[in-house]
Amino acid sequence: MGRKIVLIVGDGMADRFDPDRGETPLQAADVPNMDELARRGSTGLMDPIRAGVRPGSDTAHLALLGYDPFEVYPGRGPLEALGAGVEVRPGDVAFRCNFATVREENGELIVEDRRAGRISEDEGTPELAEAVNEEVDLPVEFEFREAVGHRAVLVLRGEDLSADVTDADPKRPGRPVKKVKPTSSDPAAERTAEIVNEFVRQAHEVLEEHPINEERRERGEPPANAILPRGAGQLREVEEFEERYDVSGAVVAGASLIKGIGRMLGMTVPEDERITGRRDTDLRRKAELALECLEDHDLVLVNFNAVDEMGHDGDFEGKVEMLERMDRDLVGRILDEVDPGETVVCLTADHTTPVTVGDHTADPVPVAIWTEDARRDEVDRFDEISVARGCLGRFSGMRLLDVLRDLADLIEKFGA
Amino acid sequence: MGRKIVLIVGDGMADRFDPDRGETPLQAADVPNMDELARRGSTGLMDPIRAGVRPGSDTAHLALLGYDPFEVYPGRGPLEALGAGVEVRPGDVAFRCNFATVREENGELIVEDRRAGRISEDEGTPELAEAVNEEVDLPVEFEFREAVGHRAVLVLRGEDLSADVTDADPKRPGRPVKKVKPTSSDPAAERTAEIVNEFVRQAHEVLEEHPINEERRERGEPPANAILPRGAGQLREVEEFEERYDVSGAVVAGASLIKGIGRMLGMTVPEDERITGRRDTDLRRKAELALECLEDHDLVLVNFNAVDEMGHDGDFEGKVEMLERMDRDLVGRILDEVDPGETVVCLTADHTTPVTVGDHTADPVPVAIWTEDARRDEVDRFDEISVARGCLGRFSGMRLLDVLRDLADLIEKFGA
Repeated sequence: MGRKIVLIVGDGMADRFDPDRGETPLQAADVPNMDELARRGSTGLMDPIRAGVRPGSDTAHLALLGYDPFEVYPGRGPLEALGAGVEVRPGDVAFRCNFATVREENGELIVEDRRAGRISEDEGTPELAEAVNEEVDLPVEFEFREAVGHRAVLVLRGEDLSADVTDADPKRPGRPVKKVKPTSSDPAAERTAEIVNEFVRQAHEVLEEHPINEERRERGEPPANAILPRGAGQLREVEEFEERYDVSGAVVAGASLIKGIGRMLGMTVPEDERITGRRDTDLRRKAELALECLEDHDLVLVNFNAVDEMGHDGDFEGKVEMLERMDRDLVGRILDEVDPGETVVCLTADHTTPVTVGDHTADPVPVAIWTEDARRDEVDRFDEISVARGCLGRFSGMRLLDVLRDLADLIEKFGA
Repeated sequence: MGRKIVLIVGDGMADRFDPDRGETPLQAADVPNMDELARRGSTGLMDPIRAGVRPGSDTAHLALLGYDPFEVYPGRGPLEALGAGVEVRPGDVAFRCNFATVREENGELIVEDRRAGRISEDEGTPELAEAVNEEVDLPVEFEFREAVGHRAVLVLRGEDLSADVTDADPKRPGRPVKKVKPTSSDPAAERTAEIVNEFVRQAHEVLEEHPINEERRERGEPPANAILPRGAGQLREVEEFEERYDVSGAVVAGASLIKGIGRMLGMTVPEDERITGRRDTDLRRKAELALECLEDHDLVLVNFNAVDEMGHDGDFEGKVEMLERMDRDLVGRILDEVDPGETVVCLTADHTTPVTVGDHTADPVPVAIWTEDARRDEVDRFDEISVARGCLGRFSGMRLLDVLRDLADLIEKFGA
């Protein structure tokens, strides 16, 4: 039997040169465990998808798990729905939604607050969702479910549905809720657009009079009296991870998008309320959970999302701090526990999120891979510049899983 | 007219970090000629097929000669048959075979010795093969031919044949000869399985009573009274090397599998009994033969197989020794003879065979390319780690032939 694989992904961990600081956050950070991985193992640069492609976290994670995102990416709706624990089957069309506050004006619904005062699960979104599920009547099967905070998901199921439809969410307050329109000439797109518009109309009726919203109005809080679907996506038939690779896998993540990727591929995705996908997450607990999953899985991918948040916020110091926390509480903890003779440890990022940009970019990311007999190069620092001299050169993230399976001896020879 | 190309392939020459030695065999070896090539030329890393794919020697050599093995690889049977000098045409289904010793028990043939006491050509396998060819009667044309030692090949020719069939060889002694079965629903597969079973049955009848086997029994040696086909493969229509590239080519190798690749592509494949494909090969003779072939061919690929054997044996010291022998008797001899103004010399491996693993792995291999005006980088050692800093970066083996043709000025411009 082969070795186990631990794939540690610092979300958006890679960065660019910050002209004010004269270095990247990884160069500035004190990350002795990451450096130890670089020193003991093979290092290099990886294009998460391909050079010049700006990856989302979702498309990048698909690539790191060996799937071509250009072929299998279902859009964000199905992944958020799966991440929220809703069943999504191939053919289903799913949407991300917000609970929002609207007022009626000349027969139109005008958005007053896209997040309904940042309403949360504690304030009754589960009850509101239940009411919508029970009282809205559509010509197709559907499931509407609350997610984190003011968020929710909608899944439509049935024949003749299409994800080629626009959003209902106008993105800015003061604007009317948009009529959902088909974006292709497929009759299924027209039908789906009508169904979503009908859903928005009926959901408003149900929510407008709901006792929870009456109470919110009494307290002077904006009622959650509308639902704004967006990001339509259709799940495709995809070969599950274990079936495809004969490798059992788990994804340990807080972010629902990443959990959705794991569930889409039929992998184990444990839930733990201490793991939030935000900076308040319990990272030591996440490391423990990853090690627990490793006991009965061949591969565990563990994602730390808070580094990416700091990149989006343009916060250099915050990113350095999160990198140091990741080094200590996640990378260090895992290195302390695994046996290099029986484990392959890979540390990398799913994409670059430069503090100078505040969003994902296409720059390659650093990668370090360590197992007992992995080639050792002279690189002893884990950062974007040092690893470029490493013995892995530059390769595609879509090849990473096979590279790791090779080092884990979990792959067959092609030929004789 | 362009330059000549010499492609020197150290079979399985690349390796991983050996934790007991603290280095790779190439790092440990004293290989001044390989280092000289690295120093004078361009170096880099190459994925023989693609990153994360564990190549066979056969699929890798197809890639190094510019063919996509995922498209053209015929399986091992046809290559071994071609390597043994048997004609194989597109559509033919070929098998590797063993001469074996069986006994009859309750109507079954039980394998006593899969190699018939390691019978050899000197002990009469050519006569046994001739008897089988003459006396076995099948509904299709076929050729059965002895190969090295206890090995042989079987080629079936005709309409409606398929390689989707299982092996007759049970792989372990004490077990019955397996009934060959179809592995697809193609009627041709069922027909082929029946034909092979009939071949096995009749061949046993012919061999059981053959005078050579009577004599073996009298001497107390196991009779070669059965033939065990395995590794069915069907040759596809493939454009020949010279036709495809307008470059004449020769393959100088001892291993029948590599010779088979050359013959499949219509290349010149000289025979020389001093070149065995094993560690007893006459490597200086091989270098001479390669240089002779270079006189009337544009490209010569010369393969040294014994390095790979040492990797399979897990023998670090043995591998170092073979690398030093290769350096002296093959690389050194070729460098002494060729004119750098008129020749492109490339040194690489077809795959990695780590002594820590004992089989092929997917790690990239080092490559050095030298001709008069090839770019010179600062790398002056030919090993897996040093070349990663070279000026070729990391590229796919399927592009190597075009890279060499470019340096040899044997390729056209695309565009204006």
